[in-house]
Amino acid sequence: MALIVQKFGGTSVGSTEKIKNVAKRVLRYQQQGHQMVVVLSAMSGQTDKLLGFAADMQRLPDLRETDMLLATGEQITIALLAMAIKEAGSDAVSLLGDQVRIITDAMHTKARIREIETELIKKHLDAGRVVVVAGFQGVTTEGDLTTLGRGGSDTTAVALAAALKADSCEIYTDVEGVYTTDPNICAEARKIDMITYDEMLELASLGAKVLEIRSVGLAKRYKVPLHVRSTFSENEGTWVVEEDRLMESMLVSGITYSRKEARITIRNVPDQPGVASKIFLPISNAGVLVDMIIQNTREGQMTDITFTVLRADYLRTMEILKETVKDIGAESVNGDESIAKVSIVGVGMRNHSGIATTMFQVMAHEGINIMMISTSEIKVSCIIAEKYTELAVRTLHTAFALDKSKQPVEE
Amino acid sequence: MALIVQKFGGTSVGSTEKIKNVAKRVLRYQQQGHQMVVVLSAMSGQTDKLLGFAADMQRLPDLRETDMLLATGEQITIALLAMAIKEAGSDAVSLLGDQVRIITDAMHTKARIREIETELIKKHLDAGRVVVVAGFQGVTTEGDLTTLGRGGSDTTAVALAAALKADSCEIYTDVEGVYTTDPNICAEARKIDMITYDEMLELASLGAKVLEIRSVGLAKRYKVPLHVRSTFSENEGTWVVEEDRLMESMLVSGITYSRKEARITIRNVPDQPGVASKIFLPISNAGVLVDMIIQNTREGQMTDITFTVLRADYLRTMEILKETVKDIGAESVNGDESIAKVSIVGVGMRNHSGIATTMFQVMAHEGINIMMISTSEIKVSCIIAEKYTELAVRTLHTAFALDKSKQPVEE
Repeated sequence: MALIVQKFGGTSVGSTEKIKNVAKRVLRYQQQGHQMVVVLSAMSGQTDKLLGFAADMQRLPDLRETDMLLATGEQITIALLAMAIKEAGSDAVSLLGDQVRIITDAMHTKARIREIETELIKKHLDAGRVVVVAGFQGVTTEGDLTTLGRGGSDTTAVALAAALKADSCEIYTDVEGVYTTDPNICAEARKIDMITYDEMLELASLGAKVLEIRSVGLAKRYKVPLHVRSTFSENEGTWVVEEDRLMESMLVSGITYSRKEARITIRNVPDQPGVASKIFLPISNAGVLVDMIIQNTREGQMTDITFTVLRADYLRTMEILKETVKDIGAESVNGDESIAKVSIVGVGMRNHSGIATTMFQVMAHEGINIMMISTSEIKVSCIIAEKYTELAVRTLHTAFALDKSKQPVEE
Repeated sequence: MALIVQKFGGTSVGSTEKIKNVAKRVLRYQQQGHQMVVVLSAMSGQTDKLLGFAADMQRLPDLRETDMLLATGEQITIALLAMAIKEAGSDAVSLLGDQVRIITDAMHTKARIREIETELIKKHLDAGRVVVVAGFQGVTTEGDLTTLGRGGSDTTAVALAAALKADSCEIYTDVEGVYTTDPNICAEARKIDMITYDEMLELASLGAKVLEIRSVGLAKRYKVPLHVRSTFSENEGTWVVEEDRLMESMLVSGITYSRKEARITIRNVPDQPGVASKIFLPISNAGVLVDMIIQNTREGQMTDITFTVLRADYLRTMEILKETVKDIGAESVNGDESIAKVSIVGVGMRNHSGIATTMFQVMAHEGINIMMISTSEIKVSCIIAEKYTELAVRTLHTAFALDKSKQPVEE
C-alpha cells in the first residue's frame, strides 16, 4: 500500500464530465489499496473569468481581495470531486488550504508555503477517505486567504507529498509527459521516460510548460518522486527523480528553444570601473529582466556589451539605453528582435566533454551563425537568428540521438 | 455616528455594475460618519448554477460538500465589493463566515447560528474600514463550512446586527418595502411605513417574500430595528420595529393570500380516542405539513375532519388517506385543489373586537363562501374558492381602509 498524491489541472477538471473521469481514476488507485490525496486546480477558464470581474471593479485590484476571489475556483472543483467519489460508492472529503492548514507568508497572489499540517489529512486517510485538497491556496497565520500564483497547484501537490512523505506525486496534464523537444516543430520528438530534477529545472525554465518550476525545486529538495502524465490516457508519463535513480543518463535529455527574447548590443563602451552597473541599473529599475550577458573586455580598450531581454521589454529597454549611451560615452546601441535561444540539457554532459563542441559543429554544418553562447553545468544555450529555430532543433535532436527511430525497439 | 448593517441580496449584486452601485450607496453612509457592515448574497443565479453542477455529480448531493460548493457564491461578491469600495478611495475588507467566526451547528444546508464573534469586525471598523461579510454561511466548531439555507443572508445580517448591537439593519431588495397586499392583484396596495415584528412574522409566513421569516424572529428577539427597502431607489422602505415604537397601530396592517394549498375532508369519522393521530401520523410520516385543521366533534357521533396541505402534497396525501379511511371506518375522503387562503393581519385587532366579523361580512356581501376559518391573536385567515381570491383581497383592502386614496394627504 502506497500513499499517492495526484494533482489534476484546470483542463482535467474543466467540466462535470471530466471531474467524473478524475473520480474514476482516483478510485482505481484506491481499489488497488493505495491511500489517495488529490489536489485540484480551478476549472479551466475560471481564474481568468474571476480576474475579469476584478478588473471591472478596480484598476489595480487589491491583492488580498484578489486572493479571496480566486480561492473560490478550487473550492468548487474539490466539492464536486468529493461528490463524484461518494456517488461511485467510496468515501471522500474536500478540504480547503485553510482547513488543512497550508500556512503561507502574506505575499498575496504569489505566497510561499511556510508549513503544512498533516494531522487532519491523515485522520481522514486512516478512515478510508479520499482526501481532496484545494490546490493553489493557503492561509496566513492571521487567517487571510492567499494564493500561490499561476501553477501553484503543482506546488501544493509537491508540498503535500513532501509533508506526508508520500510514495509519489503524480501531476496530471493534457500531454503524455515531458518530450525531448517540442513535437510541433520536430516530428521525431519523443516522450522522456525518466529525467532528473536538475534537467527538469532547466527544461521547465526554458519553456517546456508541463510543470511549474517552483514545484520541481521543491520536489528535488524533499526527494519527492514526480510522475508527469496525461489525464486522457493510461500510459506512463515522465518520471522526474533523483539522479542516482537513473540507470544510465543520456548525454543530452532534451532540446528546448525560446522565441521570446531580443538581443541588444552597445558598441564601443569605454572600459571604466562601474560602467556595467551604469548600463544595467536603469534597466533593472524599470523592472526589466536581463538574461544572457556577454562582455569581452580587453584592458584599457573599448568593448561591446551584448545581452538579451524579453521581447515584450525590448522597446522600453532601447528607450532607456539611448540616454545611457550618451552618459557613458559609448558609440551606439542597436538590437535584434528576430532571435531565438536554442538549448541542450542533460546531466550526462557534466561528466562528458565535447558536448558543447558537438552542438557548435552541428550548427556550423547547417550554416547557422551563433550570436551568443552561455553554459551551465547541465545546459548549453545558443542565440541564433530566429528563422533557423526549427532547423537547429531538428538537427540537434538527431545529432544527440533523441529521435524516435534511434530508440531501442521496446520503446 | 451609528453602526449600520446593510444586506444586499442576489439581484442587488447580480453584476459588476450593480456591485459598484452598492459600493456607492455604502460609501454615502460612511461619509455621513456611520460605521458600516455590509452583508452580501451570491450573484443571482449563481447558487442555482452551482446546485446544477452538484446534481450532475451525485443523485443526492452530499450535504457537507454542497455547503463547501455553495459557500463560494458570497466569497466572490464580497471580494468584488471590497475592491469597488477601495477603488472609490475608501478602505474595506471582506470576511468569510469562517473568518468572522459565525459558528453554527452542523446541520449542513440549513445550519443555525450558535454564536458570532465580534472582535475582528470591531477591529476593522475602528480602523475606518467598511467590513464586507459573506452572508448565508458559517462554520462548525469542527471547522466545516455550513450554509444557513435559502434566505440565509437575511439571517446573517440580523444576527450580526444583534451581536454588534447595531443601530439598525437595512435589508435591500428589489421592491420598495412591505405592501398592504400584493400590488399585482390590487392596484390600491400601498407601501407600509412601519410595522411590528409580529405582523411581519405573519405577513412573511403567508408569502410576502421580502424578508426571510427566521430573520424576523431573530430581529424581534434581539430588538434589532429592521428597514426593508429598495436597492434601486432612495426612498424610505418599511421599518419593522417593536410594537411600542408604533405611534398608533392600524387595526389591519395588511392582507395576504396563498394559492398554494389544497383542502381535504374526511367524512363521517367515528368519534373514538386516537382517531386524529391515526389520520395525521401517516401523513406527517410522509413529510407532508398540515396547515389548518377543523374538527367539530359532538360526543358519541360521527364527525367530519377538514384540513389543508400544500397542493404539491395533495395527491400523495389523498393516496395515503384512502387506506386510512378504511382503517378507521370513515365514510369517504374528498378534496379540493381550487382554494385560496386569504388573511388579514394586524396587531390592532388584539385590542379591538369585531375585526373578524367585519371580514366575514365583507365576504358575505360579495357572495364569497367561507369554507374554513382560523384565527391567531393578530391574524384571521379564511379558506375560499380560488376564483374569488382577487375579489376578496381588493374588497378587504378597501374595507379596512388600506387603499392609497384613503390615506392622509402627506402619505
